[in-house]
Amino acid sequence: MDVAEFRRRGKEMVDYVADYLEKIEERPVYPDLEPGYLRQLIPTEAPLEPEGFDEIMQDVERVIMPGVTHWHSPRFFAYFPAASSFPAMLADVLCSAIGCIGFSWAASPACTELETVMLDWLGKMLQLPDCFIAGTQGRGGGVIQSTASEATLMSLLAARCKAVRLIQAGDADRSEADILSKLVAYTSEQAHSSVERAALIGAVLMRKVPTDHCYAVRQETLKRMVEEDKAAGLIPFYFCATLGTTPSCAFDRITELGPLCNKENMWMHIDAAYAGSAFICPEFRPLLNGVEFADSFNFNPHKWLLVNFDCSAMWVRERADIIGAFKMEPLYLKHENQESGLVTDYRHWQIPLGRRFRSLKMWFVFRMYGLKGMQAHIRKQVSLAKEFESLVRADKRFEICAEVVMGLVCFRLKGSNELNQSLLKKITKSREIHLVPCQLSSRFVLRLAICSRSTESRHIQHAWRHITQLAFELLQEQPH
Amino acid sequence: MDVAEFRRRGKEMVDYVADYLEKIEERPVYPDLEPGYLRQLIPTEAPLEPEGFDEIMQDVERVIMPGVTHWHSPRFFAYFPAASSFPAMLADVLCSAIGCIGFSWAASPACTELETVMLDWLGKMLQLPDCFIAGTQGRGGGVIQSTASEATLMSLLAARCKAVRLIQAGDADRSEADILSKLVAYTSEQAHSSVERAALIGAVLMRKVPTDHCYAVRQETLKRMVEEDKAAGLIPFYFCATLGTTPSCAFDRITELGPLCNKENMWMHIDAAYAGSAFICPEFRPLLNGVEFADSFNFNPHKWLLVNFDCSAMWVRERADIIGAFKMEPLYLKHENQESGLVTDYRHWQIPLGRRFRSLKMWFVFRMYGLKGMQAHIRKQVSLAKEFESLVRADKRFEICAEVVMGLVCFRLKGSNELNQSLLKKITKSREIHLVPCQLSSRFVLRLAICSRSTESRHIQHAWRHITQLAFELLQEQPH
Repeated sequence: MDVAEFRRRGKEMVDYVADYLEKIEERPVYPDLEPGYLRQLIPTEAPLEPEGFDEIMQDVERVIMPGVTHWHSPRFFAYFPAASSFPAMLADVLCSAIGCIGFSWAASPACTELETVMLDWLGKMLQLPDCFIAGTQGRGGGVIQSTASEATLMSLLAARCKAVRLIQAGDADRSEADILSKLVAYTSEQAHSSVERAALIGAVLMRKVPTDHCYAVRQETLKRMVEEDKAAGLIPFYFCATLGTTPSCAFDRITELGPLCNKENMWMHIDAAYAGSAFICPEFRPLLNGVEFADSFNFNPHKWLLVNFDCSAMWVRERADIIGAFKMEPLYLKHENQESGLVTDYRHWQIPLGRRFRSLKMWFVFRMYGLKGMQAHIRKQVSLAKEFESLVRADKRFEICAEVVMGLVCFRLKGSNELNQSLLKKITKSREIHLVPCQLSSRFVLRLAICSRSTESRHIQHAWRHITQLAFELLQEQPH
Repeated sequence: MDVAEFRRRGKEMVDYVADYLEKIEERPVYPDLEPGYLRQLIPTEAPLEPEGFDEIMQDVERVIMPGVTHWHSPRFFAYFPAASSFPAMLADVLCSAIGCIGFSWAASPACTELETVMLDWLGKMLQLPDCFIAGTQGRGGGVIQSTASEATLMSLLAARCKAVRLIQAGDADRSEADILSKLVAYTSEQAHSSVERAALIGAVLMRKVPTDHCYAVRQETLKRMVEEDKAAGLIPFYFCATLGTTPSCAFDRITELGPLCNKENMWMHIDAAYAGSAFICPEFRPLLNGVEFADSFNFNPHKWLLVNFDCSAMWVRERADIIGAFKMEPLYLKHENQESGLVTDYRHWQIPLGRRFRSLKMWFVFRMYGLKGMQAHIRKQVSLAKEFESLVRADKRFEICAEVVMGLVCFRLKGSNELNQSLLKKITKSREIHLVPCQLSSRFVLRLAICSRSTESRHIQHAWRHITQLAFELLQEQPH
């Protein structure tokens, strides 16, 4: 494909994408096919000779689209939202074209510098404490990670390294292996599975902290565990708080937990993967109070802030902590500006070496929406969740299972887990809407998350009519 | 931005990108500015109100472009190539629009299934042994990782987990902490810094294996180290071989090393990040002989196989080894097909949970180039490196520092390291071409990698004229 054909095909692709998103509602939200469907539809080997673009685009409709779960359908309510907006998509085209791999300042100064400034912009929108803002003098600052999982892992590794150094500074003879075997990390029993995984990767013990009736971790619970563990000779070093848990969007009480972590010299990381975007609205910002006690904080603009995946924003209080954990300097990556103090080499802040020019997406979105436009997006989605909550509350057969704070509604039919499992099966099978379940206090619960940017009140009303119709059928079938 | 504006702006962006790539040669390949330049050019906070697209695109030229190191300029010869092609860019637009997060089969079956089949296609192009091909029955298979660093880390973690389980199976009382403190991994002293970093993350000891005069690891050296370590009570468990090292594109002798690893029950991972793409050509495939002894193999189509970043292809012999290391099953990620045996949930294969629909890029590139077109791309770039090598060899002031096998030429002025450092400084400062150095046998060496898809013989000739002109000036300035 030469550049002339790219001009033509690129414009065709823009129209294809616009058509896809404009008419997405007409497609079934969840595919109706069996595992292994795709292999039968395409050849077993790559072609020797080039094929034409038209052929491939025909195959997109024939092979790909029937197997897509349409995350941007207004009838998709599963998991959490995957952000998508036109400005972000356009910025990503530019990112592909520039195609730099911004592992160091020199590898593409604009890629590094725009990222630092965009994380400052975003940090200010969230009213993060000054210690997290890079500015020109800051000791902290922000970075784009691919996912919240990686941000959690980086924070745990930095904390692990800091703890080992601290202990060895007081006791030079103590081996790293011995220290590692005594370190203990904590997170909520409601935390995302990636937090436990980070501890597995980092080869440290992680203990799950029980939550209160709101599914939040409280100070007294963590304090008791820390004291028990210290008494048993373990070394508490890390706590991952969650603001907006995956099952029910619960908020750990960081105003209580932060001071405890600081006192115990434990790194506090805050994972606000989903909920973090809402903190740009003053009415939600109080939920972030206590961030001033944190060592690191992370949320995913690629979930709820209109920036297409991947874009997970992470801030650290002391950049030295995160850089120091893994800094390596082979000659082929050295450059003359790296020791200037003004320069950031983001490869030291992350697991991979390579990285795309992702801050372009933030820049386009922040400017084309403006803060007010982004706030309006959050508020609209929260109000849709509240609308759904009201519908559920008005129906005595159903119950709400957790406070609806943002865009997630946890609900169920009053009755057994089996009954609710049957209801979900009916919903999944009908393919009119798409939901996933969660478990809360041993109960099987349905989760409805407002996901698509194009979801409107009529889709909420439709979803509820559909659910109640299936529930009616189900209850009819039940023996009394 | 509504869909109508997206149609218009999307087409403008396609033209902007086409213009950028068509005229990229006119831009200086490396920016001329000081760290901190960008912050002064843009506001300190995000705007409250939306701004227009035209304004932003003007700022792309004003703010971004002056700070870009143009990796796709035919005058860029630094690091290794970052792949870029029009079909991959178009596929990425489609990937953005679909915007699914394919962590499980159910989250978007097409995303998972196309990936499995594309890794099979690519594995067959490389003539990988059958054990690495998923097919419908295979115990191995492929996955797209973001980067080679992550593939290395995943392989090391899987090997660590396997080693711990194996030892505990024979000695149930032995603690994991004790085993971890005895595990030892190996890699070449020439290996990429990310390999050492993987061991740091995994909290295991890693020893660097000295190389022969070709910068390759040989069996006898590794064997001696393994024996020493076993005698000292350590447990050798992992060797990361490199095919195509970053400094000089050297190839560890895996036909010798593989049988040793198998005999010693050490996991052998092969990192062929750059060179792997060339194995689609029969004349380079012999360099991959020995892969039949490997437990995992990885290379980056996003380096040299025309698929834009990120797309790092990894295969494992036993998918159970990699999945088993970290499998976690929270309810919100369960789906009814997951235990069917036919289904792959790629979230178990990688560090992050989220993942883009990256196999679309492979599908578009493989089909629009065809195997022959991709082979032609590799062969052309190797022939350009050979052309540059001939120019260097014909000039008695210079020497070639490592065998030129693929698209990388390591060369230097005969003389001191300081002399060569001065030459590189002049080259960097002139901004006519862009190179980075490496260190080989304590010598400071210049690396010229054929990077851009648009590099032609005239650019090689120009680069050499430029280098010799600067060398001439430098040698004139030297005291005799």
